[in-house]
Amino acid sequence: MNSALLKNATIITASQTIKADILARDGIIEQIGRHLDAADAQSFDLTGRYLLPGGIDVHTHLDMPLGDIRSCDDFTTGTVAAACGGTTTIIDYAAHAHGETMAQGLDAWHQRAEGKAVIDYGFHLTLSEFTDRTLRDMERIVEAGVTSFKVFTAYPGRMMIDDAAIFRVLQQAKEIGALVCVHCENGQVIDALIHDALAAGQTAPKYHPLTRPAIAEREAAHRVISLAEMADAPVYIVHVSSGAAIEQIAQARLRGVPVYAETCPQYLFLSAELYDGIEFEGAKYVMSPPLREKLDQDALWQAVRNRMIDVIGTDHCPFHFQSQKTLGRDDFTKIPNGGPGIETRLNLMFTGGVSEQRISLNHFVDIVSTQPAKLFGLYPQKGEIAPGSDADFVVINPEHETFISAITQHSIVDYSLYEGMRVKGTPEKVFARGELIVENGRFLGKPGAGRFLKRQRSSHYAR
Amino acid sequence: MNSALLKNATIITASQTIKADILARDGIIEQIGRHLDAADAQSFDLTGRYLLPGGIDVHTHLDMPLGDIRSCDDFTTGTVAAACGGTTTIIDYAAHAHGETMAQGLDAWHQRAEGKAVIDYGFHLTLSEFTDRTLRDMERIVEAGVTSFKVFTAYPGRMMIDDAAIFRVLQQAKEIGALVCVHCENGQVIDALIHDALAAGQTAPKYHPLTRPAIAEREAAHRVISLAEMADAPVYIVHVSSGAAIEQIAQARLRGVPVYAETCPQYLFLSAELYDGIEFEGAKYVMSPPLREKLDQDALWQAVRNRMIDVIGTDHCPFHFQSQKTLGRDDFTKIPNGGPGIETRLNLMFTGGVSEQRISLNHFVDIVSTQPAKLFGLYPQKGEIAPGSDADFVVINPEHETFISAITQHSIVDYSLYEGMRVKGTPEKVFARGELIVENGRFLGKPGAGRFLKRQRSSHYAR
Amino acid sequence: MNSALLKNATIITASQTIKADILARDGIIEQIGRHLDAADAQSFDLTGRYLLPGGIDVHTHLDMPLGDIRSCDDFTTGTVAAACGGTTTIIDYAAHAHGETMAQGLDAWHQRAEGKAVIDYGFHLTLSEFTDRTLRDMERIVEAGVTSFKVFTAYPGRMMIDDAAIFRVLQQAKEIGALVCVHCENGQVIDALIHDALAAGQTAPKYHPLTRPAIAEREAAHRVISLAEMADAPVYIVHVSSGAAIEQIAQARLRGVPVYAETCPQYLFLSAELYDGIEFEGAKYVMSPPLREKLDQDALWQAVRNRMIDVIGTDHCPFHFQSQKTLGRDDFTKIPNGGPGIETRLNLMFTGGVSEQRISLNHFVDIVSTQPAKLFGLYPQKGEIAPGSDADFVVINPEHETFISAITQHSIVDYSLYEGMRVKGTPEKVFARGELIVENGRFLGKPGAGRFLKRQRSSHYAR
Amino acid sequence: MNSALLKNATIITASQTIKADILARDGIIEQIGRHLDAADAQSFDLTGRYLLPGGIDVHTHLDMPLGDIRSCDDFTTGTVAAACGGTTTIIDYAAHAHGETMAQGLDAWHQRAEGKAVIDYGFHLTLSEFTDRTLRDMERIVEAGVTSFKVFTAYPGRMMIDDAAIFRVLQQAKEIGALVCVHCENGQVIDALIHDALAAGQTAPKYHPLTRPAIAEREAAHRVISLAEMADAPVYIVHVSSGAAIEQIAQARLRGVPVYAETCPQYLFLSAELYDGIEFEGAKYVMSPPLREKLDQDALWQAVRNRMIDVIGTDHCPFHFQSQKTLGRDDFTKIPNGGPGIETRLNLMFTGGVSEQRISLNHFVDIVSTQPAKLFGLYPQKGEIAPGSDADFVVINPEHETFISAITQHSIVDYSLYEGMRVKGTPEKVFARGELIVENGRFLGKPGAGRFLKRQRSSHYAR
Repeated sequence: MNSALLKNATIITASQTIKADILARDGIIEQIGRHLDAADAQSFDLTGRYLLPGGIDVHTHLDMPLGDIRSCDDFTTGTVAAACGGTTTIIDYAAHAHGETMAQGLDAWHQRAEGKAVIDYGFHLTLSEFTDRTLRDMERIVEAGVTSFKVFTAYPGRMMIDDAAIFRVLQQAKEIGALVCVHCENGQVIDALIHDALAAGQTAPKYHPLTRPAIAEREAAHRVISLAEMADAPVYIVHVSSGAAIEQIAQARLRGVPVYAETCPQYLFLSAELYDGIEFEGAKYVMSPPLREKLDQDALWQAVRNRMIDVIGTDHCPFHFQSQKTLGRDDFTKIPNGGPGIETRLNLMFTGGVSEQRISLNHFVDIVSTQPAKLFGLYPQKGEIAPGSDADFVVINPEHETFISAITQHSIVDYSLYEGMRVKGTPEKVFARGELIVENGRFLGKPGAGRFLKRQRSSHYAR
Repeated sequence: MNSALLKNATIITASQTIKADILARDGIIEQIGRHLDAADAQSFDLTGRYLLPGGIDVHTHLDMPLGDIRSCDDFTTGTVAAACGGTTTIIDYAAHAHGETMAQGLDAWHQRAEGKAVIDYGFHLTLSEFTDRTLRDMERIVEAGVTSFKVFTAYPGRMMIDDAAIFRVLQQAKEIGALVCVHCENGQVIDALIHDALAAGQTAPKYHPLTRPAIAEREAAHRVISLAEMADAPVYIVHVSSGAAIEQIAQARLRGVPVYAETCPQYLFLSAELYDGIEFEGAKYVMSPPLREKLDQDALWQAVRNRMIDVIGTDHCPFHFQSQKTLGRDDFTKIPNGGPGIETRLNLMFTGGVSEQRISLNHFVDIVSTQPAKLFGLYPQKGEIAPGSDADFVVINPEHETFISAITQHSIVDYSLYEGMRVKGTPEKVFARGELIVENGRFLGKPGAGRFLKRQRSSHYAR
Repeated sequence: MNSALLKNATIITASQTIKADILARDGIIEQIGRHLDAADAQSFDLTGRYLLPGGIDVHTHLDMPLGDIRSCDDFTTGTVAAACGGTTTIIDYAAHAHGETMAQGLDAWHQRAEGKAVIDYGFHLTLSEFTDRTLRDMERIVEAGVTSFKVFTAYPGRMMIDDAAIFRVLQQAKEIGALVCVHCENGQVIDALIHDALAAGQTAPKYHPLTRPAIAEREAAHRVISLAEMADAPVYIVHVSSGAAIEQIAQARLRGVPVYAETCPQYLFLSAELYDGIEFEGAKYVMSPPLREKLDQDALWQAVRNRMIDVIGTDHCPFHFQSQKTLGRDDFTKIPNGGPGIETRLNLMFTGGVSEQRISLNHFVDIVSTQPAKLFGLYPQKGEIAPGSDADFVVINPEHETFISAITQHSIVDYSLYEGMRVKGTPEKVFARGELIVENGRFLGKPGAGRFLKRQRSSHYAR
Repeated sequence: MNSALLKNATIITASQTIKADILARDGIIEQIGRHLDAADAQSFDLTGRYLLPGGIDVHTHLDMPLGDIRSCDDFTTGTVAAACGGTTTIIDYAAHAHGETMAQGLDAWHQRAEGKAVIDYGFHLTLSEFTDRTLRDMERIVEAGVTSFKVFTAYPGRMMIDDAAIFRVLQQAKEIGALVCVHCENGQVIDALIHDALAAGQTAPKYHPLTRPAIAEREAAHRVISLAEMADAPVYIVHVSSGAAIEQIAQARLRGVPVYAETCPQYLFLSAELYDGIEFEGAKYVMSPPLREKLDQDALWQAVRNRMIDVIGTDHCPFHFQSQKTLGRDDFTKIPNGGPGIETRLNLMFTGGVSEQRISLNHFVDIVSTQPAKLFGLYPQKGEIAPGSDADFVVINPEHETFISAITQHSIVDYSLYEGMRVKGTPEKVFARGELIVENGRFLGKPGAGRFLKRQRSSHYAR
């Protein structure tokens, strides 16, 4: 099929920075070398540009049901936004309703994505209850190419499963080579604090962070780490938001516990005073865990530098401010939790990480692409630039600046968390399996081009 | 009533070591000074002897129902054993059965103790379930002079209450000036491990420690500390057994969290290889938490020295080896949990602490008497030698050695955890409210002499 | 000689709070009890008052030569100020000049104090160089009742001795039962930073803290702790000023290293922005270590609460602002280092500690009196209220407020670090060996009444 | 010149594991890809083999003068041994004698290496004294391609420079883009302990470790880290040997201090009981720091896994057991310090790291090749497999086992630290700049083929 020859780029991988040419055929990298030539291939001169492996966002919620509504990006608008931001692969959280089997949940997600996604995608499976068949079903789900599961210590009665269940899931995950992702907050204490807040008439968005203290995250992080330690299983903590949780992760690693950690740009760039915005503005930032303090931002950036954070995800879960967030106008607990982020992951991290000299270009590639691929069983097909890997590329003009705005973004949601922010690192070109799908902010691809990725075991198990 | 003049003793309190005389009238200390005289008082020459405030054991289980049996010491045999070991006050854990009110539980315990105890006693109240009336009832219990409560993170379905309940109990305790004692082990994981062990045919006593790992204690300790932190309430961790839990306590204190900690002599002197004893010997040591490793012993002694441990309790909960422990001959989970210790607390701590130069005499007094009195609202009536305090004294001949043995002990139980151990610090005389009740191992007092102590708020609230 | 009967006071010691009477004869406490009477004694009704053991300030520099000048309080004005502030015992730092023997240095200090001090006093001996005879001479000094020594890691060429010397001093101290006090700052780095600052024309007081970073203190603290660990000797760190140093102390204690720590009120109440005062105002605060950040204050208060700090000293070393501090008007390195504090130790600590509910009354007594006495071999003669102890008392009206001011203070120095601060805890009466020497701010005693105290070994060696 | 086509290998880099072919021309990698062909190139079929970038040993001492003797491997025997062990680049420590300039020292080393080395080499420059010209001379040395320096906190009077000097060197290193390597042990305490040992007649090799306690290493590590923190400069700690030092490094990294760390196989595989060997056997292991305890080995392996250790060096500094170590037969301080290791670095780390599943293959490559290249300014010329990099390769048959023995080794020294050990990972083939120089244990290259490498700045400065 297609052949592409990318000339003169500065190729940036998680470990290398080299000047070389790349020849891709049929969506796969064939050669990397100096002075490559291929008469039949479409040629791109990338002098002065960085060429990276396509970004991988392992934490998205597209077209996700939440009560009577859904997160507002479906698999087309969401993946177009992703692609335009330099992400060529996502792993979305499939879930099953109470009483439904995991397989049924997975089917529903396949239906949502198939024919709609513009980039390749995989699924995690969220376990919202623990039953007699949970452990057995996990095996089937892994065979279906879904090699990671998610559990919650938050949201009792809805998503939370108890310690015994989490322990069993961890044991089974180890047995079958899966990775367990955990949302760490002590949901029981949080529900008590919420109850007290509402009883005291505290209904505004600013009570959202006050009822979800960082200690509740730290507690759950330590608990989950301890369960993993006792199960001798790896664990992946999603959207770490506080310095207190980071300390637990650091201590666990020094003990040798295989705990992996993700944070999201919102926790690195934004902080809790945004909840005090005029009127209902604070609702834009209502997500869980909530935005924290400046000191937490510092601790998280430090953790990125120290490699205590392995992965940058987005937890992209957008709800329209004007028509959906408003459900909670009189009660912050009714504000749909979540915010957009799928499109701004790379440029924010490029700006805050590379431009502000906190991390190297290679480290940047590692946390937005290579580590996600490795930890979630997509490597070296994804997340790498090497012969045999998929020809998913992001081309960046390091000098070029853009502005983030809801007006220019591709997500359908009606606001941005970063309105007006000036950034570098917005992709100039994006290739997915050898096809140019984004150029200068214009999307050139098509719905349905994205394929479901049957994932392998996490690289954790390859040690 | 009585008047006693104690001459020439070396008085040891938690902070002082002085040579002086003491005059007690009507069970109360009236004067401390040099050259005291009182013609009407019975005089004792204590030259060459240490005189300490009577010991206080805040962790006992006398006459405690457990399924169809009861711990084998009742309030007479148990308090006689206590007195002979130098303990003049105990605080026993009253409990209520599921469905019973706290007040009913407390009444039952009053009936067990009244007319039987030979030394003064108080009660804690163990909350084995959390209901609509729990918080309200706590107030009444405090008014009745029971100012501490106990909750469990272990034993799901029997004693465990969930995080939300513990959080509410902590909040309420702070409100009403009570102290919450917690048994810290993650019961859910332990039950899973027990299930797996039994399923694998592992029924011997040695599987007891293997199914209750130290990490399960560390996890619960951190969780409970976090709940206390969020409730802004003090918390008291009973029978800390592992270095891992100590680390959590140390970190919490450095953060300023008011966490108090107790350990017991068995965790300082004994270790897990005892579970490997011939035949069913290991059952003698089946208690929860289990005995740990030598490294844990070292860490606990270090914690005693560092004052990370505030109190030495015993968790005295004896079951006959020949007739009660045997219930678990074919299934270690059916072995009644607990062991004796009420009589050997002072001499073991004197020997391991003072004689082996780990702690000073004053520090010894502090952890066996003064801190227990302070933390549980008995101070300065108990735990101190000062005008106005109760004339409860222990007199020790520092040169005198004795041997611990089931044969010579006063507890009714048929074995000792320390059979044959040579110790110093066994009391030569014991005075309770001015009366000589023990002399050279002979008990001189009488059942019913002990009074119920209505306790004040913990000294924690006096800071 | 004198006899005093103190009635109805609330007696506060490091561990007790009791209502009782005290009878003192010939400067010694004879009895403590209820309903005491003594017809021949002068009687004081102390109803509603706290009665504490007299304060002990173990870190003073009176009449201390520094180049061509001397610290401006001599042993009369300095001890009058001490007494009026509730301190009835000081331990001053004697020193020997380079080339002089320790004995010569000690003699000089005896001459400075004898006949002048109004309260009892002892000496430490500062080792400003290490020679062939240092270790031998240490023995003689201890025999002369000076059982503690001081060394510096700061001030190369003047006071600093190298690591080998400190190690030898620690070894010898252990051998002879002495305690080594250390000023912890890395003097070599500080001198380099000072050199760079002056070279850049940075001569104002505000460059004082910038050239003495907290890391230089943390480094020296860890080094000294390590030397003590290797010498298996105790060590006492004077004037800890930073959270970073506290962390080292906390870690060392958790390892079991016997490290003791002192801080001073200035580090708890003041911070580095004072160096930015108008004109030359900042010079008032030029002392070493320098004032630190607010976060350090928090960490130090936490350390006081956690008992990581054992002792509150003052490092009282006053220089007149108008005539002495001015020596450094054009060069901050020429500002004589030090500030006043001997008179405000108790009321500041009472206010910031007890009134602001950070510590209990007993804890307050412990750190201003009992621990200093114990650690420096004065206990139980000093620092305690018990039969046989010296009748040194401070009487406080807990409701009474005063204002700190250079105008009303008894020190001769021309400024106060706390001008205008409102405090509680200023003594109403002060007794020294049974004599009333201060009443309502008026000094009633006389020069020469203070006696030299031959000190015993530190309580450290009594464990 | 040469052209080589390496077919069908499993290429292992620090981040990639891919199956592809490599075409190298003129010593440089030209292409990496699938189905490569080149008629003019010598072709190697590497099916079933791992192909890695050549090893880089950044810590060697070849032909090093020590008093009257020299380390027994010169640049020919030493580099032949290195090559046969899979190391294609070394960085040796050049030094200058007291009174000599750095340039003179460097010249001497160039003379030792030129025409003799069989593989490429670079130099560090060891500063054994600090003079007026030190900082200025450092610039010249960097211009000459020597971009790293070494200083000692050990060996007072010989190698040690004081804290002020180290601080200045760190400041200057930052200024000129150099990296400072530090030998961390407190030399003053060690000399005192040695003095005491010899005075007590303790002259056997077993007193070597007893006079160099791990605390002396921990102390120096923290000190050097603190100096680096204050100088805002990176620092590289050589041959970390203890868990105590690792803790300091871990804490520093969590604070964000750029501290890099190296350990050596001897500290991972051997421990201190070897000093108790019969007769003079212990002398074989006399090196500084000394071998430590098993717990330290565990901590170091954990640190390798946690990436607290960046680099595996060897500190190869061999002395003949029969004729050189014997200088210290009657006095352990006269035993020449050091041992062989240059030839066994890769197979030991492959065996203990990869085969025993502590680290991944990629991680193995990282610590033996890629990180050394990056940290010492050789990347991507060395340490990487990418177009443009030098064609230095190691080919390993992962199934093949060999035995380590002094008999079969290529180093001239007369013993091995690992005699008889069975290992995997010994190279089957080694290529240096495209030339096959080792095959099945036979050396095929020639003296003088190695070139001096002018090194760039450390990758640290590229962040």
